[in-house]
Amino acid sequence: MGSSSAAPWKHLLLTSIQANSHLRHHSYVQLATVSSTGKPSNRTVVFRGFQDDSDKILINTDTRSRKIDELKHCPFAEVCWYFTDSWEQFRISGTVDIIDGTNPNPAKLEERERSWFASSLKSRLQYMAPTPGLPCVDGEGQGQPFEMGSSLDPRAGPVAAFCLLVLEADQVDYLNLKSNQRVVFSSAPPDHEMSKFWASEKINP
Amino acid sequence: MGSSSAAPWKHLLLTSIQANSHLRHHSYVQLATVSSTGKPSNRTVVFRGFQDDSDKILINTDTRSRKIDELKHCPFAEVCWYFTDSWEQFRISGTVDIIDGTNPNPAKLEERERSWFASSLKSRLQYMAPTPGLPCVDGEGQGQPFEMGSSLDPRAGPVAAFCLLVLEADQVDYLNLKSNQRVVFSSAPPDHEMSKFWASEKINP
Repeated sequence: MGSSSAAPWKHLLLTSIQANSHLRHHSYVQLATVSSTGKPSNRTVVFRGFQDDSDKILINTDTRSRKIDELKHCPFAEVCWYFTDSWEQFRISGTVDIIDGTNPNPAKLEERERSWFASSLKSRLQYMAPTPGLPCVDGEGQGQPFEMGSSLDPRAGPVAAFCLLVLEADQVDYLNLKSNQRVVFSSAPPDHEMSKFWASEKINP
Repeated sequence: MGSSSAAPWKHLLLTSIQANSHLRHHSYVQLATVSSTGKPSNRTVVFRGFQDDSDKILINTDTRSRKIDELKHCPFAEVCWYFTDSWEQFRISGTVDIIDGTNPNPAKLEERERSWFASSLKSRLQYMAPTPGLPCVDGEGQGQPFEMGSSLDPRAGPVAAFCLLVLEADQVDYLNLKSNQRVVFSSAPPDHEMSKFWASEKINP
């Protein structure tokens, strides 16, 4: 068993992202949450990078999507990330902070704004589309890219539906199918120096 | 809203599998479950086809893996299947039947045996490896393909650790990112003719 105050899995993950960066879907991950009825939900989302120099994972989403209700009810999530070229899997579990336009923390609102402007115009337009998951009204949103009939000022800030999710991991389960190795990284609460402590252990694949 | 007694999403899924069959990972899906502490779990598993002519999904797993404990506690699961070439996502949610060697139903035991013999020898050998998730003892299972030191009679039936999971869907959420279309398929309980009834509805992506 090893230990470190830095997140040892982050370097491993960045290396895998780099090794698979020629694949368009290398940043697509599956995010599992729990519904208010206690059932699991699972969907593909886009990894938007780490928050500043931390190991917190950024994901953009729509405040009107079902995952927001689920995360408000149960803030726990597990991301499953499979890298098809290097045969590696990362299971990243932790808690999710929901940052929408009503957040009282100015620093978090700023973070949300940065994530908005870091998105493509096409991505931003999705948040002006009809409410996801509602029955489709003819001519709305379906069968044609939504942006066809819309315009967006590139300087305009985030719309109400735009929401930033920040996943703070407390456990990462890493599996390498080529080398047949598996390592689990677990965090302990911050020590007196306020830096998060990570322990790692090799386990059977 | 349309309706049908056959599972209308099955044809859609088979078409997607076919369209992406040149990719080795086209049969890799993410399976979300809920742990006994109410937290979500998520991992990659291999789709092993449908049960006979039904729309029930087959997955092989190890009885010693954590997902078995989780499914015994909460039988609900959601599979998320993203097809990287055709930009399609299937979210398949339902209940899971766990079929291990102690199952009292002879037909189910036979199904488990069929799934065992349909697996490659390399896959079968995994079930003889040290218990997944336990701390790694030097020289066991880690860093080298397990089969190096093992032998397996190809005619031998399933070992105790081999388990078949059968996922029976009650809802399928289909998203096509190329056409920007989304359809949700929901099943109602079997009618008097004992065939499952599926309704479909177009919803906003």
